[in-house]
Amino acid sequence: MNYPLTQIPERTIKPRQKGYTMVMDKGLSIRQIEDFLETSASYTDIVKLGWATSFVTPNLKEKLAVYKSAGIPVYFGGTLFEAFVIRNQFDEYRRILDQFGMEYAEVSDGSLEMEQDDKCEYIRTLAQQVTVLSEVGSKDEAKIIPPYKWIKLMKAELEAGAWKVIGEAREGGNVGLFRASGEVRQGLVEEILTEIPEEKIIWEAPQKSQQVWFVKLVGANVNVGNISPNEVISLETIRLGLRGDTFTHFLNL
Amino acid sequence: MNYPLTQIPERTIKPRQKGYTMVMDKGLSIRQIEDFLETSASYTDIVKLGWATSFVTPNLKEKLAVYKSAGIPVYFGGTLFEAFVIRNQFDEYRRILDQFGMEYAEVSDGSLEMEQDDKCEYIRTLAQQVTVLSEVGSKDEAKIIPPYKWIKLMKAELEAGAWKVIGEAREGGNVGLFRASGEVRQGLVEEILTEIPEEKIIWEAPQKSQQVWFVKLVGANVNVGNISPNEVISLETIRLGLRGDTFTHFLNL
Amino acid sequence: MNYPLTQIPERTIKPRQKGYTMVMDKGLSIRQIEDFLETSASYTDIVKLGWATSFVTPNLKEKLAVYKSAGIPVYFGGTLFEAFVIRNQFDEYRRILDQFGMEYAEVSDGSLEMEQDDKCEYIRTLAQQVTVLSEVGSKDEAKIIPPYKWIKLMKAELEAGAWKVIGEAREGGNVGLFRASGEVRQGLVEEILTEIPEEKIIWEAPQKSQQVWFVKLVGANVNVGNISPNEVISLETIRLGLRGDTFTHFLNL
Repeated sequence: MNYPLTQIPERTIKPRQKGYTMVMDKGLSIRQIEDFLETSASYTDIVKLGWATSFVTPNLKEKLAVYKSAGIPVYFGGTLFEAFVIRNQFDEYRRILDQFGMEYAEVSDGSLEMEQDDKCEYIRTLAQQVTVLSEVGSKDEAKIIPPYKWIKLMKAELEAGAWKVIGEAREGGNVGLFRASGEVRQGLVEEILTEIPEEKIIWEAPQKSQQVWFVKLVGANVNVGNISPNEVISLETIRLGLRGDTFTHFLNL
Repeated sequence: MNYPLTQIPERTIKPRQKGYTMVMDKGLSIRQIEDFLETSASYTDIVKLGWATSFVTPNLKEKLAVYKSAGIPVYFGGTLFEAFVIRNQFDEYRRILDQFGMEYAEVSDGSLEMEQDDKCEYIRTLAQQVTVLSEVGSKDEAKIIPPYKWIKLMKAELEAGAWKVIGEAREGGNVGLFRASGEVRQGLVEEILTEIPEEKIIWEAPQKSQQVWFVKLVGANVNVGNISPNEVISLETIRLGLRGDTFTHFLNL
Repeated sequence: MNYPLTQIPERTIKPRQKGYTMVMDKGLSIRQIEDFLETSASYTDIVKLGWATSFVTPNLKEKLAVYKSAGIPVYFGGTLFEAFVIRNQFDEYRRILDQFGMEYAEVSDGSLEMEQDDKCEYIRTLAQQVTVLSEVGSKDEAKIIPPYKWIKLMKAELEAGAWKVIGEAREGGNVGLFRASGEVRQGLVEEILTEIPEEKIIWEAPQKSQQVWFVKLVGANVNVGNISPNEVISLETIRLGLRGDTFTHFLNL
């Protein structure tokens, strides 16, 4: 940190279990990745290549290499997993993970219907090959899952071998954990936290107001995801009480 | 494409008449153009230097050279044409097109009043010099043009020599084809498509929900415009059914 | 300017007292700064490192050096000043300004309560060390300051030694000068302008509609701030009547 400010909350350091930041890359060029890493590498724990963007990205292998050399793990968005599954090409998906040297993968059912048992079976299978992130919540804003079911799903998926579970919000932050307006489903989040350890959850929170809400509820070291590359610095100030929204939150006044 | 996914809609390839993507550059630097081309050149058919940004762009000649060497045509936004016309400087506009080696130009009346005959005369004149894109629709959200008149205008402008017609939406996607909320004027679009061949129209659709709507209505190879440089990869996944919004649209389930 | 268009309002040139553009850098990399300067250096009068982002920016010294070599002054956002003040570390703040060679500083009370006399004392003290920008207005959208009080504060702060006063709007443009919807508090702005010379005020106006509103009210050479680096070119066209929104504003038709 550049200045000797007192009363700054202590941040975890890499490799983190808490205070984790997952960034969404939805098509960066090599130089754009380098620029992002210059400012934000130490604050970024993992990068998701958003949904199935990796399918059409011409510079995919080079991108993976740049992230690897910076020590930042990368995974393909869950929509890519679902695109293979819905086409009965799951085995090919597994081969592709190997082919590209992926060490993480996401299992999700945001865009298709999947029985919980089947989802857990995918998690079990992939967990033998990679570290699995499992996402709960639909991308369909009309599909409201009640809190007890979120908890049931998250528990089952962690038991099946997911390293962490992700609460769905999309790039826009307007489904799953959030209402269409972007407002947090507060009761849902609080109830989940009574049953699932906070370090096992990554909350997708692309909007600033959502990040502020989670930092205030869980603390500086909340795990959040779907952060835009150019918002990681801002997020870090929110975590530390150095943006207006959390300015007095960590102070003993 | 990086993976052997089945049931992916066939995309047209360059030079395209359909499936055309027009990108809006509103002030990129040289390196930012290079970064954009690294990821998106094969998906980008033409670039518009938005409205009259080219007037204040210090690196204009260099920018044109970079796009030219990538084989991507460029044109000045229609507002620049209108800025010359409203000042009675149309002849100077024609000289400037030559001076900068432009091969395309836009004729529009989004910010001024112009009789249809006059607009068609501008199209006829410019069509002797460059390939003309002609835009229909006002930038004034209060000015609602009824569908039959959109069709009449489009037909006349194509007959006058426009290569394609553009449906106006601005950078924001909140006028012309769209309501102030960004919602598509569905009846308008459907009625236009009964009379004008889809390959002759470029629909300005800067918002994701608008792109999704057009891909669902017209197909993977709809012509769209005013796409932000960093959204071309996303658009390509929407076209291919590889983003949540169009995930099952092209599948035989 | 690239073309000989007539009836373009005359823009002031650097160093400007009017027509001033303050840009917000909220975490740019070195190359991103270079890219921004390539297109926008001549239109950018000063850069603010937004709120306390400079605390977590790993490349701070290099960034300051790049701006310095381009002749563009830089200052730390007022939230950093407030973060030191609320911790009773104001003397350390003064040392840090020296340590980083800062020639400008902001005094604000957007995130804390501060008596006007105390604020003016901070201004007086800092004005002996640097050029002071003083910000009026709260970041709390519930805190509505009536116009007469804005004027009283601005006058007192200018008398205390502030070089210019800034009207608060945040990065979002939804507090202070603006309603939560982003709409301008028109009566407030007009009343301020009856008492404070326009060249002494910088209006934070991050949204395009806000920039348009101020250009229409004050003119091409209004002082505006919190402009995103990639919107400076757009702002310049708005100032010159070369975007739809101000297209006819400066014309004698």
